[in-house]
Amino acid sequence: MRGLMQDRPLDVATLMRRVERMFGHKRVITATTNGEMVTPWHQVVGRARRLAAALDLLDVPPRARVGTFGWNSQRHVELYLAVPTSGRILHTLNHRLHAAELTYIVNDAADDVLFVDRSLLPTVWPLIEQFPTVRHVVVMDDGGTEPLPDDPRVRDYEALLNEVPAPAPPVAVDENDAASLCYTSGTTGRPKGVLYSHRSIVLHALLLLGADSFAISERDVVLPIVPMFHVNAWGLPYASMLAGTDLVLPGPAMSPAALASQMSRHRVTFAAGVPAIWRGLLPLLPQTDLSALRMVVSGGSALPESLALAWHQATGVMITSSWGMTEASPLVACSRLATVHDGLGQEEQRALLGTPGPTVPLTEARLIDDSGDPVEHDGVTPGELQVAGPTIAAGYFGAEPGAAAFTDDGWLRTGDIATIDRYGYLRIVDRTKDLVKSGGEWISSVELENEIMAHPEVVEAAVIGIPDDRWGERPLACVLTTAGSDFDAAALRAHLTGRVASWWIPEQVWVLPEIPRTPTGKVSKLALRQLHASRQQ
Amino acid sequence: MRGLMQDRPLDVATLMRRVERMFGHKRVITATTNGEMVTPWHQVVGRARRLAAALDLLDVPPRARVGTFGWNSQRHVELYLAVPTSGRILHTLNHRLHAAELTYIVNDAADDVLFVDRSLLPTVWPLIEQFPTVRHVVVMDDGGTEPLPDDPRVRDYEALLNEVPAPAPPVAVDENDAASLCYTSGTTGRPKGVLYSHRSIVLHALLLLGADSFAISERDVVLPIVPMFHVNAWGLPYASMLAGTDLVLPGPAMSPAALASQMSRHRVTFAAGVPAIWRGLLPLLPQTDLSALRMVVSGGSALPESLALAWHQATGVMITSSWGMTEASPLVACSRLATVHDGLGQEEQRALLGTPGPTVPLTEARLIDDSGDPVEHDGVTPGELQVAGPTIAAGYFGAEPGAAAFTDDGWLRTGDIATIDRYGYLRIVDRTKDLVKSGGEWISSVELENEIMAHPEVVEAAVIGIPDDRWGERPLACVLTTAGSDFDAAALRAHLTGRVASWWIPEQVWVLPEIPRTPTGKVSKLALRQLHASRQQ
Repeated sequence: MRGLMQDRPLDVATLMRRVERMFGHKRVITATTNGEMVTPWHQVVGRARRLAAALDLLDVPPRARVGTFGWNSQRHVELYLAVPTSGRILHTLNHRLHAAELTYIVNDAADDVLFVDRSLLPTVWPLIEQFPTVRHVVVMDDGGTEPLPDDPRVRDYEALLNEVPAPAPPVAVDENDAASLCYTSGTTGRPKGVLYSHRSIVLHALLLLGADSFAISERDVVLPIVPMFHVNAWGLPYASMLAGTDLVLPGPAMSPAALASQMSRHRVTFAAGVPAIWRGLLPLLPQTDLSALRMVVSGGSALPESLALAWHQATGVMITSSWGMTEASPLVACSRLATVHDGLGQEEQRALLGTPGPTVPLTEARLIDDSGDPVEHDGVTPGELQVAGPTIAAGYFGAEPGAAAFTDDGWLRTGDIATIDRYGYLRIVDRTKDLVKSGGEWISSVELENEIMAHPEVVEAAVIGIPDDRWGERPLACVLTTAGSDFDAAALRAHLTGRVASWWIPEQVWVLPEIPRTPTGKVSKLALRQLHASRQQ
Repeated sequence: MRGLMQDRPLDVATLMRRVERMFGHKRVITATTNGEMVTPWHQVVGRARRLAAALDLLDVPPRARVGTFGWNSQRHVELYLAVPTSGRILHTLNHRLHAAELTYIVNDAADDVLFVDRSLLPTVWPLIEQFPTVRHVVVMDDGGTEPLPDDPRVRDYEALLNEVPAPAPPVAVDENDAASLCYTSGTTGRPKGVLYSHRSIVLHALLLLGADSFAISERDVVLPIVPMFHVNAWGLPYASMLAGTDLVLPGPAMSPAALASQMSRHRVTFAAGVPAIWRGLLPLLPQTDLSALRMVVSGGSALPESLALAWHQATGVMITSSWGMTEASPLVACSRLATVHDGLGQEEQRALLGTPGPTVPLTEARLIDDSGDPVEHDGVTPGELQVAGPTIAAGYFGAEPGAAAFTDDGWLRTGDIATIDRYGYLRIVDRTKDLVKSGGEWISSVELENEIMAHPEVVEAAVIGIPDDRWGERPLACVLTTAGSDFDAAALRAHLTGRVASWWIPEQVWVLPEIPRTPTGKVSKLALRQLHASRQQ
């Protein structure tokens, strides 16, 4: 017997109608090269409805992929709305990828049209002949000075909106229809496309409003520093629509000074980004008014304790860790202090907030050992972390079902080794492939990195396994130090003694001028391994 | 093209697994006649799994209705879990209804088994021969002293759980399957059954976690004073499972003294009930420690401003209004202070929190005039309030589709006249049938009641329309006054002059020893009209 409730889809159009009708007076604020664009939400939605009509004008078919190369901007928000609500699929692209990866991804997605910020044209246009499916390139003039190519495929965004006779009427969708597409960063193998549904986007937005996750409310001023090409900017634009917040967008102005100025001038209450962003802002904190700030969410890679401490001391705000994946919309877990943690000291509280924490509602986690058996959630025993839920991927775009990333019973294999305690708090022990196996025993590179980063002269640390004749593998510590430091292997040994097992302590330390990163800002252990291999030759 | 996300149902089993795995150490606390029962959630879930097996033992078929006559108690929570997760339908019954109504409802639902608190047996057992579909009566011993009937249909709850050889394995459900059933109080016509789905229950629980609705978090201690027979106790038990709160249940101990004691001893942070509850608690507030209380939600009928003021003065907590319907799971709207209300004084803030406020996410509201045309959301123009969303009913149990309560395009007609302002804030002007039409113009009985209740000697007021030869109808004020008051029509006229249009002021005032109520605690205007008619004879 079915329940007798209204059959209303969980779709992006619901979010759009809500922000238009109830929060039309709230604002989207975008930094531009010549100032700031401030637009009430009702106008943003009105423009999105015209944009949907423009896609009709360009004969973009239903379900076609609409690619975007854009900074975090109002026009990008308009695309977030217009593309899915008109029955097409929003495909956000990371302009920091290499040409070969971009070409692969655009062709794998078979993008029909690309929307490109003018300042990013130099990245995109030279590749255009490699994109046979792309029929139109719509340029969003963000104040860039790049000349526009004289080519019939090129259109101007604002001119196109002006050509439209009327806003497009709404298109009915099924909540399981695809709404957007984002590719994994592909640290191993080819990038893979994750195809979000309207349903997963709406459920994820609801989760971000939860008191124990991000608690996004109408009173918030939300700043997604995480790029809008990266997993729907962690879902924050959609959550902002649902809650009715002001939304502050940095545009191309990603310098620490520009971000600090935005945060202070607009009295930002909630900001989200990767640890490198928080590290970059650190020197500016003493002279920046962040009195409105209530929550800073860090994700994408592990949050060093030293960074969390420095932020806490400078602002009074403890940075909150979140943990997710492109395949998980992305939020899987978000840390917080629960009643069982009452009585912890500030240092322990900060450490706890630096772990992934408990899974969000609707998402379930389990640990599986090498034999495929479940591992107890005792906070000690590690296993491969697997996750399930309605906001988690079941497969990859264009791939055959049954990919190795999914178990037979449909859980996502995260590729991470974790522990879970009896209260559901996750701790990531390591990436499966980043464990160092020495003398037949595993060394956790993540734990080792955290301990090394506790040294006052170490800014950042990355540990990789290097071949060793006697032990199979030994850990190599790659570090970035503070200016003038004479940190070396002896200093490391002195620091780590008593903190980790003695056989974990790396014999070798490399002090590097810079830690190599992937295009999404994560430490590239692949590049470190290549560097090590090249130095051995 | 479908999104490639996991096909995981939004079902009650998801809530049950979450509270068991992550919040098993948190507690369900039930007041009983001989003390208090305190049980960790993991045991409650374990018992619910045994209860599901007991339903198998009793041969309760899939999709059968399992009726409950119970106070707010741990066993009732076990039924909330076991019945829907085992593929049956939980049917909560209001034991305060008259025998004829109960008989109608049990037979309309065709309940297969009834679970009855021992103290409620005197209400239920005398009717048992009128319930031909009921095969079993399972008695939950709540310390009542009523003798158990010597009848093969009668079973003891605890004995039944002990008979079960093993907990029941989970039963897969579709998220649109029916999970529970609750009948409207039927102020007009027959009571009608609303059939909630697993999906609507989970979405509604998620909504209650939202920062701008009830913001239920793991740190909360939740006290649903609203009965568990009334629209799933406003969804609070399910929200508590999702968030992992302690859940405090008053059992049969519904006296103000017992409630105050529970709130203070367990440091309740969140409590919800009807205005009559808050009025009853008022005299006890000065000697009750409510320092943990962060939110009090009032619903079911309009919150008098004088009551809100008294609570605010005594506790520092401003009572929050919520507005809902049995047909709406029930929450439609929940008031709060938005950024546009910054700068309001405390009195204005309290008044605003006393209105229904904005709709919760996923629920949409519109106003329709007599001609069926939409009315502008200008905060002034009234229209019939209609609502839509995935937690709103599409029809009634056992009824033909196309009931008068639903529009052709599938919206629920609430039967209330409301205004909506440009920020989405609802104000209820009147029940459609409670408007007084005098001299061809409408008088809002709700507004008039609120103004009358602002008089210091008026405890409660209800206005009905009475026939009038000259004007068609005139308002009659029925009031309950403070002890010793000599409040009369002249006092009313003096009080209302300047507050409402002069032609709104009732010529007649009835000072009653008691305001008649419906079984769910609402003022019964039907009874007042009958009283008026009988006095005219």
